Amino acid sequence: MKRLVLKFGGTSVGSIEKIQKVANIIKKRHEEGNEIIVIVSAMFGVTNDLKKKSNSISKNFDSKELDVLLSSGEQISSSLLSGAIIDLGVKARSWMGWQLPILTDGNHTSSQVINIKTEEILNFISGRGVAVIAGFQGVSSNNRITTLGRGGSDLSAVAVAKFFETDSCEIYTDVEGVLTTDPSIHEKAKKIDKISYEEMLEMSSLGAKVMQPISVQASMINDIPVHVRSVFSEKAGTTIISQSEIDYKKVVTGIAYSKNDAKVTLVGVADKPGVAAAIFEPFEKNNINIDMVIQTAASNGKKTDVTFTVKREDLFKTLKLIEKNNQYLNYQKIIHDDKVSKVSIIGAGMISHPGVVYKMFSALGREQINILAISTSEIKISVLIQEDMTQKAVKTLHKKFELD
Amino acid sequence: MKRLVLKFGGTSVGSIEKIQKVANIIKKRHEEGNEIIVIVSAMFGVTNDLKKKSNSISKNFDSKELDVLLSSGEQISSSLLSGAIIDLGVKARSWMGWQLPILTDGNHTSSQVINIKTEEILNFISGRGVAVIAGFQGVSSNNRITTLGRGGSDLSAVAVAKFFETDSCEIYTDVEGVLTTDPSIHEKAKKIDKISYEEMLEMSSLGAKVMQPISVQASMINDIPVHVRSVFSEKAGTTIISQSEIDYKKVVTGIAYSKNDAKVTLVGVADKPGVAAAIFEPFEKNNINIDMVIQTAASNGKKTDVTFTVKREDLFKTLKLIEKNNQYLNYQKIIHDDKVSKVSIIGAGMISHPGVVYKMFSALGREQINILAISTSEIKISVLIQEDMTQKAVKTLHKKFELD
Repeated sequence: MKRLVLKFGGTSVGSIEKIQKVANIIKKRHEEGNEIIVIVSAMFGVTNDLKKKSNSISKNFDSKELDVLLSSGEQISSSLLSGAIIDLGVKARSWMGWQLPILTDGNHTSSQVINIKTEEILNFISGRGVAVIAGFQGVSSNNRITTLGRGGSDLSAVAVAKFFETDSCEIYTDVEGVLTTDPSIHEKAKKIDKISYEEMLEMSSLGAKVMQPISVQASMINDIPVHVRSVFSEKAGTTIISQSEIDYKKVVTGIAYSKNDAKVTLVGVADKPGVAAAIFEPFEKNNINIDMVIQTAASNGKKTDVTFTVKREDLFKTLKLIEKNNQYLNYQKIIHDDKVSKVSIIGAGMISHPGVVYKMFSALGREQINILAISTSEIKISVLIQEDMTQKAVKTLHKKFELD
Repeated sequence: MKRLVLKFGGTSVGSIEKIQKVANIIKKRHEEGNEIIVIVSAMFGVTNDLKKKSNSISKNFDSKELDVLLSSGEQISSSLLSGAIIDLGVKARSWMGWQLPILTDGNHTSSQVINIKTEEILNFISGRGVAVIAGFQGVSSNNRITTLGRGGSDLSAVAVAKFFETDSCEIYTDVEGVLTTDPSIHEKAKKIDKISYEEMLEMSSLGAKVMQPISVQASMINDIPVHVRSVFSEKAGTTIISQSEIDYKKVVTGIAYSKNDAKVTLVGVADKPGVAAAIFEPFEKNNINIDMVIQTAASNGKKTDVTFTVKREDLFKTLKLIEKNNQYLNYQKIIHDDKVSKVSIIGAGMISHPGVVYKMFSALGREQINILAISTSEIKISVLIQEDMTQKAVKTLHKKFELD
């Protein structure tokens, strides 16, 4: 007998029919003799609809009341799902965050789970009941509803897996798992069987939409292996697991891309110590993240060009800040380009393969894809290229690193 | 400084604009220096939509989960309303039933309030905060959400008025108060300033839709005067109050009618002791309520006709039961008619006016309205008439008893 956490996302419970389908999946897993704890998100569209309502009351809607409001979405889905399971003849009941309780740090709209009282549910599941916990929500020490923020139901699943010491943490979704790249731009994308937490973090912060980075981080910190799988199939999906448990046969695990970046170049900045710091100093205060940075020495040794990327949404603010700062920087001109994309190869296997960078660059070079900037980490190499080259680059790299 | 309970129904908070309007009413009452506790129903349509969802999962949806599901409606409205009040610069917060708690008897889908812990809200309102309590919901002693059934938010308001010992219990609605009769069939219907609990019970169980009988009963038992008033006007509405506090100038307070009845006549039943009991004996087991009963002695002294009314929806079942029972009853024939209506004059003032019955019957007689059956209580006289005579009867009686 195993103890399982099964988490179902908003699209999986997006209609009454889908809720009944999920109830049948749960029934089947239960009949296999497992102890089942279910985490469920709000029905697709409900949370956004509630947010819209609060927004039309106030752009600055009280965060404590927002948590009360939004948590009702999971209250609805968890009671409907429990009712659907009971209707199949299986004992079940719902728990809201406050009923266990799932104790949080009280940080409204983005709280962290501190503790979960497990007794009541342990009794219930040992008596062959299916426990259904409303995802995304908890309660603060002063008895107010708090929510866990974006991807909150995944966080609930990881926290429940931790405090209930379950044998699995399964995230049911509408895709078959984590893919080697985005199937909408490359038809040869394939399901990844195993991926490390770190790789998954790079994949998801770079645009893979299966799991929010914050939830991957939580599973990494607690070393809770996560199984991402499809509600449409009984086949295994992707297991997100510690790097040490993966036998890397391939250098690269996946190819990610994002189109959220903009490139800024300051031409002819004085090449003196502290100038880069001077450029970026006002960014932190204004909450602008710098990603890639390149400084190219000027030919005469007195001037230099500095290129960096920021999020597209921050481009305008960035340009304003730099122009304001020009008295000190004294650059000759400023160039910006938001028609760029960042393509990344990700793989823990590349640590032991020093030729990867060369292989990547030469493959792109052969396809006449110009590299505008580069950033690397131990398990990732990202290049900035012209946006219209994205698909070509992804396909080229996907083939080059034997993922096709 | 007064302590007020203000209850707002589903139509009053049926849209974001209406919620903001209600927030403004609350702000105004608060600025007058009052301590304010608000009870709010679910936004119009939400509860029905949730019920429909549970119904499409199962006709026999688990009642415990149904309570979790339905209570989310008030969770949404109470948080939105709190946010709207805060947005107007007034301190406010929402309380769910479990947060106070509002302790109930644990009877799912129709529980009674046993106790309310008042400390937290008393602190809050004495610090000039507006407390917003989600109506219709409470929590059982084993920490499960329960709901109070139909008209539940009115019951919440009465219970809060009782446990917080408030100076008023105000039910805001979309009508100006309780009217002397249905304005859709008689344009001269007028607002009643004061009505006793008992009269209101007769009014509402006979078709007035302002307050559910169960809520009127609760206010009567606890002697909590209720002020029914309009969100569209600052004018006083109708106060529902103890009979002893009303100075009756008029004999009749209001004219009610209902079209929910059907008439059944058993012709030629043997006139022997116990026959009426034999007719009605199977009704109780089958949950059929008999309202009016008339037994007319037969001319030859051996046979009698028995006429009674049941709810229209029970007519078919009633006829089946009687036919099944005919071996013993041995009636000659059975006649039934569901095109009847019951018109009632209600007024605590009629106790001291013995001529009322005659006045009513003669007024109807003059208009050629045939009386098919009669029932009376201390404060009510009801007559059964042909349905197509309803409007004429109401107008006649409304004028006759000086309500025009």
